[in-house]
Amino acid sequence: MTKKGHPIGVVETQYLTFAEGTDPLRLESGQTLGPVRLAYETYGHLNEDRSNAILVLHALSADAHAAGHHKGSRDPGWWDALIGPGKAFDTDLYFIICSNVIGGCKGSTGPSSLNLKTGKPYGLAFPIITIGDMVEAQRRLIDFLGIDHLLCVVGGSMGGMQALQWSASYPGRVRSVIPIATALKNSPQQIAFNEVVRQSIMADPTWREGNYYDYGQPEKGLAIARMLGHITFMSDQSMEEKFSRRLKNGNYSFKFGADFEVESYLRYRGDNFVKRFDANSYLYVTKALDYFDVSNGRLIGANGCERIRFLVISFKSDWLYPPYQSQEIVKELKRKACDVTYCEIASTYGHDAFLLEVKEQTNLIRPFLDKTFHGYEVAEYAI
Amino acid sequence: MTKKGHPIGVVETQYLTFAEGTDPLRLESGQTLGPVRLAYETYGHLNEDRSNAILVLHALSADAHAAGHHKGSRDPGWWDALIGPGKAFDTDLYFIICSNVIGGCKGSTGPSSLNLKTGKPYGLAFPIITIGDMVEAQRRLIDFLGIDHLLCVVGGSMGGMQALQWSASYPGRVRSVIPIATALKNSPQQIAFNEVVRQSIMADPTWREGNYYDYGQPEKGLAIARMLGHITFMSDQSMEEKFSRRLKNGNYSFKFGADFEVESYLRYRGDNFVKRFDANSYLYVTKALDYFDVSNGRLIGANGCERIRFLVISFKSDWLYPPYQSQEIVKELKRKACDVTYCEIASTYGHDAFLLEVKEQTNLIRPFLDKTFHGYEVAEYAI
Repeated sequence: MTKKGHPIGVVETQYLTFAEGTDPLRLESGQTLGPVRLAYETYGHLNEDRSNAILVLHALSADAHAAGHHKGSRDPGWWDALIGPGKAFDTDLYFIICSNVIGGCKGSTGPSSLNLKTGKPYGLAFPIITIGDMVEAQRRLIDFLGIDHLLCVVGGSMGGMQALQWSASYPGRVRSVIPIATALKNSPQQIAFNEVVRQSIMADPTWREGNYYDYGQPEKGLAIARMLGHITFMSDQSMEEKFSRRLKNGNYSFKFGADFEVESYLRYRGDNFVKRFDANSYLYVTKALDYFDVSNGRLIGANGCERIRFLVISFKSDWLYPPYQSQEIVKELKRKACDVTYCEIASTYGHDAFLLEVKEQTNLIRPFLDKTFHGYEVAEYAI
Repeated sequence: MTKKGHPIGVVETQYLTFAEGTDPLRLESGQTLGPVRLAYETYGHLNEDRSNAILVLHALSADAHAAGHHKGSRDPGWWDALIGPGKAFDTDLYFIICSNVIGGCKGSTGPSSLNLKTGKPYGLAFPIITIGDMVEAQRRLIDFLGIDHLLCVVGGSMGGMQALQWSASYPGRVRSVIPIATALKNSPQQIAFNEVVRQSIMADPTWREGNYYDYGQPEKGLAIARMLGHITFMSDQSMEEKFSRRLKNGNYSFKFGADFEVESYLRYRGDNFVKRFDANSYLYVTKALDYFDVSNGRLIGANGCERIRFLVISFKSDWLYPPYQSQEIVKELKRKACDVTYCEIASTYGHDAFLLEVKEQTNLIRPFLDKTFHGYEVAEYAI
């Protein structure tokens, strides 16, 4: 456990298994899933009245390892820049929880997990998972940890969708929500990109209708899917700054090799992804994104969420989840007279900005959490 | 031949073969190509002093059939809305020429053509082609037609690059240039999309290193490549207007089928493309796009192009070739004191707008051509 003022240091992933036997998880599809294992990590200490817990929700291909280091590894968690003593999510003040989504492949139950009925990995026998199902699994973890009310649910991209889903499913259990670079629903363009991603994986004959676990990943299809992903995560400008038209070997090859640095980079990122992420999980998680839709009043349920405070953050150069989609969240909340603060950060990093814009996000999140925690009134922010 | 005031009606594609024997086409790669066949069509009549010829240049997957109908077909040419009597390119006044690019697969020599050395289709033995090489082949066609000076060279997207290349390679032979929805060079983001397109084709095992002609196209890889292309040709807004989140069958399938109309549409467009375009040609033509670069003074050669008039057109919602890239063309031309008019059309169609925005483009192009033809001064336009 972290000592006050000390860096998070080495952390261990923990596991919770539930929904066993006669009490499976009932999914939105009507199917059931059980047993369900959740991988999760925590940072900081839960206070006596259990009022300082923050649930951090991850994006597409991330995991429960949001901060600190794993033993023997120098790689910090994916949001380490924002979680720790004195950081945006201050572990001296708050108890931070992050769990891997179901359907994923980082310790929580997903298509690569063992199907007890067959003794083999699920593959496509795994049921379709929604953002609502992910949240339902997280709710069981929060119950297990003995937390009635979360001080905050927060996440970027798909993490932001889960945060919004928490306010829709359990308005009585969250005091604040920070949806970052996200949307009430995927647009047809976002669905279209995800569909190309899925088709790319499924077109690879080594995908074998999802039953590739005895043979290895559908490498080419998955790598191409991720290459496309990376283009959408960056902005035109950030690619220009990072690569411009620089050539790998100074001259055009007049062949179909990787002439430009941007081509090598994408190939590298694609190949690398194959080593760390399950192809079937990519199918399931992108489908969950596409099915998500809390527009048309679904964000604010019958019980309302008037007492929940919202901080909505978008990034100017994010063309995958553009600011107008965050503004739609704000409009939906304002229509229900919710307490909402909105900020568009003038970043050039594109969608990746939620991982990279540390200072600007910290400046918004710290005072927002502080005032939520202490129950103060909050003013509208603007940068 | 078209009669004055009459619709273009039925047209026939014509063919010119050159660069045979000891006089092959010398390519930018240093390789040679010959014999070279060009498919081309013409509309309207060349006047006595041969001063009314306009060369129309096509984009990625189009062909020489820009206007009118082929016998037995009801499908008009790809720019029929802009070419014909009383249209933007008025066939009562001008002689319009359009030829298929080399490297393509619509009648001109490309990777699917017979390699006389082997008696088999070229496949990857076909040399890498540049936009400069395409223009060099067109120049031979223009020579063959006995035209010293082109009244105008015009095209959208890759067609716009060829138009710019004409002013760079043969400034003395063009009186005006209309580059539409194009750029001085592909940005790293554009290169990145093209690289994903190429990888998708080459990852398909039925591509067989380009030697698939005895077996049929690499269908899946090519279809996915084209699906991605279609996303980049449309805008977020035009996809929203066309598809929104409408479901094919009213409900989520909770399977990996095509739930959303946008998914079915993309699959249909992908599958359709496989029937009409050669996979290897897609590799060659996208590579030509990526290699194109007339920035840094290369657009205006030593001889200058001060006497050439330019009309540069971009579309507000085009995120594949965004307006800022057209503005870079304008800046480059203004730096050399060229006569240039720029207009950004407030279209929601995205990159496809150069095929769809008929009225706005006609309003710009007709007076521009008229004044070029009659030598009048031209004012700056604004919409």
